[in-house]
Amino acid sequence: MNDFLNSTSSISEFVGASHIGDTIGMVIPAVDQMLLDKLTLTKKYSVIGILSARSGAGPQILSMDDAVKATNTEVIDIELPRDTKGGAGHGSLILIGGYDPSDCRQAIQVALDGLPKHFGDVYNSPAGHLELQFTASAAGACHLAFGAPVGKAYGLVCGAPSGIGVVMADTAIKTASVDVLSFASPGHGTSFSNEGMVHMSGDSGAVRQAVMAGREVGLKLLAELGKQPVADFPSYIK
Amino acid sequence: MNDFLNSTSSISEFVGASHIGDTIGMVIPAVDQMLLDKLTLTKKYSVIGILSARSGAGPQILSMDDAVKATNTEVIDIELPRDTKGGAGHGSLILIGGYDPSDCRQAIQVALDGLPKHFGDVYNSPAGHLELQFTASAAGACHLAFGAPVGKAYGLVCGAPSGIGVVMADTAIKTASVDVLSFASPGHGTSFSNEGMVHMSGDSGAVRQAVMAGREVGLKLLAELGKQPVADFPSYIK
Amino acid sequence: MNDFLNSTSSISEFVGASHIGDTIGMVIPAVDQMLLDKLTLTKKYSVIGILSARSGAGPQILSMDDAVKATNTEVIDIELPRDTKGGAGHGSLILIGGYDPSDCRQAIQVALDGLPKHFGDVYNSPAGHLELQFTASAAGACHLAFGAPVGKAYGLVCGAPSGIGVVMADTAIKTASVDVLSFASPGHGTSFSNEGMVHMSGDSGAVRQAVMAGREVGLKLLAELGKQPVADFPSYIK
Repeated sequence: MNDFLNSTSSISEFVGASHIGDTIGMVIPAVDQMLLDKLTLTKKYSVIGILSARSGAGPQILSMDDAVKATNTEVIDIELPRDTKGGAGHGSLILIGGYDPSDCRQAIQVALDGLPKHFGDVYNSPAGHLELQFTASAAGACHLAFGAPVGKAYGLVCGAPSGIGVVMADTAIKTASVDVLSFASPGHGTSFSNEGMVHMSGDSGAVRQAVMAGREVGLKLLAELGKQPVADFPSYIK
Repeated sequence: MNDFLNSTSSISEFVGASHIGDTIGMVIPAVDQMLLDKLTLTKKYSVIGILSARSGAGPQILSMDDAVKATNTEVIDIELPRDTKGGAGHGSLILIGGYDPSDCRQAIQVALDGLPKHFGDVYNSPAGHLELQFTASAAGACHLAFGAPVGKAYGLVCGAPSGIGVVMADTAIKTASVDVLSFASPGHGTSFSNEGMVHMSGDSGAVRQAVMAGREVGLKLLAELGKQPVADFPSYIK
Repeated sequence: MNDFLNSTSSISEFVGASHIGDTIGMVIPAVDQMLLDKLTLTKKYSVIGILSARSGAGPQILSMDDAVKATNTEVIDIELPRDTKGGAGHGSLILIGGYDPSDCRQAIQVALDGLPKHFGDVYNSPAGHLELQFTASAAGACHLAFGAPVGKAYGLVCGAPSGIGVVMADTAIKTASVDVLSFASPGHGTSFSNEGMVHMSGDSGAVRQAVMAGREVGLKLLAELGKQPVADFPSYIK
């Protein structure tokens, strides 16, 4: 599969782009002060990195979570458009700040490189999708987007149409002893997406086990709507 | 037309699924208390039924309205994702509560069975859609979703793109003496859907007459955008 | 290209329709008072004109801006559904008020006639879109929708996915001395669309120059996601 778009770009801001979720990465080395005043950021950096996608929020957020751990950058804004090109979920806009453009550039590249992994547990069918995410140690992206405690394991269990996510969440929580951070649904905590998703924290083994249990029931339920859901990349949660 | 998906499911929560609107019905016999704490419900039942769809809100809500009338269950949450798989309208997530799983299971089954009827006055064209609904006696689903007074006739007149719904509403209201409960539009009372819709209550004959008048003008207006709108099922409002 | 739909309509409210954005124009000569009470309008006219579209907000708003300048009508509501038929942006619902149905009818016709011009700087690719708009003298539509000062030049620079719009905005603002009215993004100032857009006011030459600079970098960035973006109509900003 041809995951990444190859180009020798003449635009100084361009970092890279991927067919996966139509994701583009950019860096602005010195943001105009007037624009900075109008952006809604947790901290006003003048060096910013941008990761922007038509399809996918969890995969980009988890990829960025790894990226800020690996670089001297900080997540300063996460916004979730109601997109996915006609699908049931979100796209994403993630802004990071740093003191050096090369740091931001590196972070954006790391995030782009992490997309195939974090799309590994995104399962699609004509009727909907499932998404599972897990990290043993959440950082700034999972914290800002989902309220995950930094340094603790974090797990995401999501199903669309949203009712499937309710049953997945119930199954996940019953499977292992985890903290339930929140449950997001079309009217609460999403951008009117057709997703039900539970955000969990706690012991690494328990969170992982809960995520896998949610996945198992989700795959069966979504298949009831016609076709078997399939992922484009190998699963990373096992 | 093959409306319903046939399966012998191994998942205890599964009730049934339909190609119509990609609708799935499920029951959780004993919801995990931590999940129950995070859900936004009008009443905290531990036995819940779930009706969830990619396309359609009115049809599922009206079908559930009949279902709660026929069973010992109660509607406790209705959320409207901005979905329809690229169309102009909503999907739906409906939760019901009960004291016995078999009651919830029965209610969800009744609601699934009601979909062909309540999609009978949903008309689609490449440019948009129309939706008409009518009940002689509104129950809990129409009350929670649309503010319909319980026990009185309720009518819905909806058009997309939303401007068509404005004219349909005006025509409907002028036709018969009805109470106008509210008018929903992209920025007010929808989840940013491209629909204009009026919610009406009152005398059964008047509401029905108003709905039919809205339908007549809506069909002509939507046809002006190219193709004649068509319904997949026979009309039930006559 | 066959831009406009031809029909001899039997519906008194119908003014015209266009394939461009699936846009329909209508007039209600005497709105029902009960409906008027439920609509959210800046001023309660009983003669209203309606412009409603599945795809496009900027083009319809700029076209209506010209239309109210040319007629004795006033913009009284602008709402932005999250639409574009699976695309990343908005549709639109625009209501105008007047004292004479023929004035409203004329305004709606002028707005429909302005669509090809104002879609001239809308560029689409499979991955996203760009939109540029410019007027030397903003009127009521740009004022109500975007906060543009009436009588001053106004410019819109928009990119999707939204991160592209951030870089376009930064480039535009740095190019010429303009006032930044606001920056809209998925979570702030849009209906969860996947767009980043800056609204600018100021000197006519400066605003135009800023818009053109935003366009140049936007075309290059969106092309990095695969295909070269193309417009369906000739550019009007030069």
